Formats: sequence, C-alpha cells, structure tokens
Amino acid sequence: MDMRANRNALIPVMTVEEINAFLTKEFPQLNQGSSDYMAVEIHPGGCTVRLDASERHLRPGNTISGPALFALADIGGYVCALSHIGPVGLAVTTNLNINFMRKAEAGRVEGHCRILKLGKSLMVFDTEMVAGPDRLTIAHATGTYSIPPSR
Amino acid sequence: MDMRANRNALIPVMTVEEINAFLTKEFPQLNQGSSDYMAVEIHPGGCTVRLDASERHLRPGNTISGPALFALADIGGYVCALSHIGPVGLAVTTNLNINFMRKAEAGRVEGHCRILKLGKSLMVFDTEMVAGPDRLTIAHATGTYSIPPSR
Amino acid sequence: MDMRANRNALIPVMTVEEINAFLTKEFPQLNQGSSDYMAVEIHPGGCTVRLDASERHLRPGNTISGPALFALADIGGYVCALSHIGPVGLAVTTNLNINFMRKAEAGRVEGHCRILKLGKSLMVFDTEMVAGPDRLTIAHATGTYSIPPSR
Amino acid sequence: MDMRANRNALIPVMTVEEINAFLTKEFPQLNQGSSDYMAVEIHPGGCTVRLDASERHLRPGNTISGPALFALADIGGYVCALSHIGPVGLAVTTNLNINFMRKAEAGRVEGHCRILKLGKSLMVFDTEMVAGPDRLTIAHATGTYSIPPSR
Repeated sequence: MDMRANRNALIPVMTVEEINAFLTKEFPQLNQGSSDYMAVEIHPGGCTVRLDASERHLRPGNTISGPALFALADIGGYVCALSHIGPVGLAVTTNLNINFMRKAEAGRVEGHCRILKLGKSLMVFDTEMVAGPDRLTIAHATGTYSIPPSR
Repeated sequence: MDMRANRNALIPVMTVEEINAFLTKEFPQLNQGSSDYMAVEIHPGGCTVRLDASERHLRPGNTISGPALFALADIGGYVCALSHIGPVGLAVTTNLNINFMRKAEAGRVEGHCRILKLGKSLMVFDTEMVAGPDRLTIAHATGTYSIPPSR
Repeated sequence: MDMRANRNALIPVMTVEEINAFLTKEFPQLNQGSSDYMAVEIHPGGCTVRLDASERHLRPGNTISGPALFALADIGGYVCALSHIGPVGLAVTTNLNINFMRKAEAGRVEGHCRILKLGKSLMVFDTEMVAGPDRLTIAHATGTYSIPPSR
Repeated sequence: MDMRANRNALIPVMTVEEINAFLTKEFPQLNQGSSDYMAVEIHPGGCTVRLDASERHLRPGNTISGPALFALADIGGYVCALSHIGPVGLAVTTNLNINFMRKAEAGRVEGHCRILKLGKSLMVFDTEMVAGPDRLTIAHATGTYSIPPSR
C-alpha cells in the first residue's frame, strides 16, 4: 500500500515494556492482576496486542465473547496512541465499529493494529484479530481516539 | 415515529424474570456471580437493560470503560433477540458500532434498546445508554445479531 | 427519553428556508438543479430532511441505492450542524455508520435526525429513514461531524 | 498477515472486463453514461476499484464528497462479491461504516478492497481509499453484503 512511506514517518516514542508498565499502573482494571491483555510489539505506525482468552472470556457456544474482542481492539488503539504520542492517560475512544467474522475457542488472539491517521485531535486506527490453528481473521475493528489538546 | 405501529407487532415471548434466569444459567461469565448486568424491562419491539458500574468497570480518568458499555449494548441486543424469538443461546453479534459521547462515573447505566428490524436471519437494534444525575446519553450503539435458522 | 430536557437546550439559529438557501448556494452538487434533497423541518436538537427518490437513485433490484440513502443521512447531520451552530460551510463528516434494513421503491424518504451530542469539536447524530406506504424504517445511520474551531 | 493463505483459496470467477460490462448493463445509474466508477483489477480475495472524481463529486471546501467515497467503497464490496461468486445482481449492502481521514481534491481515487470473510449468507469486506500526489489514505470503510441464498 502506498501509504507505507507515510506511516513510517510515525515514530514510536515508547517501548513495549514501557507500554505494558503504563497499562499495569494506570489501568489496573484491564487485567485485574492477570496478564490477559498485553502489548507484544510496537512499530512505526502500528502495534500488535494480544489476548490470552480463557474461560472467563467466553460466551454461550464456548466462543470468545464480543466484549472481550472489543476490549482487545480498543486496547490496540490505545497502545497505538500511547506509543506514538507518549503516556497520555486520558486519550478516549469516541467511536468503535467491530465486525465478528468467525468463532474462536479459548486461546491466544493477536490484534494487528494500524494507525490510519494521526491528526491533531483525532487518531483513526484499525485492528485485525487473528486466532486458531490457521490464524484466520476472527474479527476486525475500526475506531477513533480523541487525543487531549495538551499534546 | 411512524414505525411504532410496526414495532407493536413484535410480541415478547419471555418475561424479564425468564430472561435473567436464562442469562445466569447460560452466560455465567457475564456477571461472574454478581448482578452487574441485568434486564429490567421488556416491551413489544424493545427492552431496557442496566449496568451497575463499579470500580472494576472503570478506565483511566475514573470513567466507565468502553468494553463495559459495549457489553451493555451487546447484552441489550441479546435480550431483544431472546425476548422476541425465545431462548436461542446461539444468536451471535455480527456487527456493533458504538459512539461514546460523555464520560460517566461509577453508578447505574440504563440501556434503552429498540429492535429496528427482525428479519429471518438478521436482527438490527440500537441501544441508547443514559447515566448520571441528569440521565444524559453517554453512549449510543447500533448492532446486528445473526439469528440461527432453526428458528 | 430523559435526555429530552437536555436536547431542548439546543436552540436552532437558522430556519428551514435559510438552510435550503444555504445548501443551494454552497453545495450545488447536492441537487444539481433539482430539489431531490431538502430540509423540511428544524426543531431544538434535531431536524427532518427528505429525499424524493427517482430512477437515478435506484440500484439493481429497483430499490433506492446505498449512496442515495447515505447522502440523505449525511445531509441530515449537516443540517443539524448548520441549524444549531450557524452557516459553517466546512463542518465535515469524520465517521458514518449505516444499516440498511428494508428495500424501498422510488418515492419520498424522510430522515428523522437527532443531535446526540453537540460538543466543542464534534457533533454526534443519528438519522432514521422511513419510506413506503407504511413509513417503515428502511435505514438507520449514526455519524460524527467535525466542527471547525472558529465556532 | 497470516490470513493470506486463506484468502488465496478464494478464486475469482469473473474478469475485470466482465465485471465492468455487468455494472454498465445492470447498474446504469452508477455512472450515468460516464466511466467515473470502474473496476480496475481483480485478484484472489479482493479487487481494486477507482473513482475519477470531478466537479460533480465535490462538496463545500472543494473536497470529494462523502457520498462519492461511500459509493466507491460500496462498489468495491459489490465487485468483490460479483467477482468471487458470479453475477448475482441482488447482493445487497446491509451495513457500511466509513471513516473520512483526509480531504482530497478532484482526481483519481483508488479503492483497495479485501474480502475479510465470504460466508454462506454474508460477505464482510474493507476498502482503503487512497488519493493525491502521495497516495495517502483519505478514507477507510468496512461493510457487509447479504448474499442471496440461490448461490
């Protein structure tokens, strides 16, 4: 895609370790002492996050629940914003649209996230979630974060 | 709105008590022993659900988190489907779009849900979430459930 | 809905006639000399717009096309913004999500629009589109407009 | 992305020429005698479509209008469905979510489309729209087509 040149202009300012430490400290409700949701990789213009889905993330039919996947997509956007702007705890989601495409059993889900636009007050991103032995896309989300003006 | 005549043609087939009993039995992960998420009212063409948001539903900034509100909207659609079709455990969300409009502190959130269309294989609904002393709209979601053909 | 008290605090600053004159002058591409898309009513916190759909608004199956309904929803948001903020030609749509629920033949479609939030930099709205002899809901959209800071 | 193996299992059954001939014949309203909207390339699991945007596709601010880009995204999904299932005129959009990220002047816009899921009754796709001298992403859409059961 021709926008890659542009995306490379985005330079991460935090490492994965810094991101995970920030999440643990500022957002303890996310994992409630576990490490279910984690950032696993940061790159210019995007990141990868993961969910280790267990029993408590399931819904009827023994499939990973919508809220659990929504949370992964949302965290992916948050990590995109944090890693490229710095530790701004108050960036907030204003919109998120998610399509659920395939059922997934308990296990690891990766969310591959791209920054589609990083503007002065809004960041648009998407998250493609893959799981299962064939790493098929199980859900896809697009969202917008409002970035505090103090940036 | 002129569609009301049409919505009244939708007749609930389960009571609030039956719905909450079904959710407790079939979807134990939802409340994990608590009663945070509950159906509170069923009417032809819609329902009201609620979240009693506490510490664990918050995100940085002490505001109710996106995933917690997503879950409320999603449950609202599930209760719409259950109450108007019967206890079909395997109705699944295929799409959900949510806008977050105002921050809300811990406390009660009501989700007012409408069935916008109940077709043979898809149900479209929306959920308007209100909270705070002035019951302002804090979030609004629109979604689609896929309904099993065995209906 | 309890937010009505709040919505009534929104006061329109332009009339339907002023809105339609503004659209004709500033946005000639909308109707290309026709009056297919028009504002028909403005009220505190919302408006009604309409599309007189003819042959050119149809798609295969003789049903009103997605882009024609998208345009109606989008115009509805634009009229909400214009009528409550004043003639700001450069308010732009940042996100729009639309569900298509029923097919509709050529004829009049009304879009009932509500301002869900009017903030400093973003306005969130929804548009419920009804058509046909029974005025059923044929489509529903939710969107966000970015409002210029010069407000 | 690991899903590529999966996407390659999708085999196009129509050529670009067949697609464009089908669109011209079955959907004359799309271009109204022009060739503004065209399929330019088909590949396993996706396609590229384009819009040659001129004066009539603009909105206030001399930027390509929302409905014009919505139409491009929607056509992209339609071409994905047609090219991979065959000439099913009655596949219909059930949901489309679009984010507008950058303004674009009149000129060529390409829509790069991927099939995210091709199921028995629903196809989920996304379209990334690029334009301008730097081919930046100006808009991104995700949508769902309902596929007729006669498939």
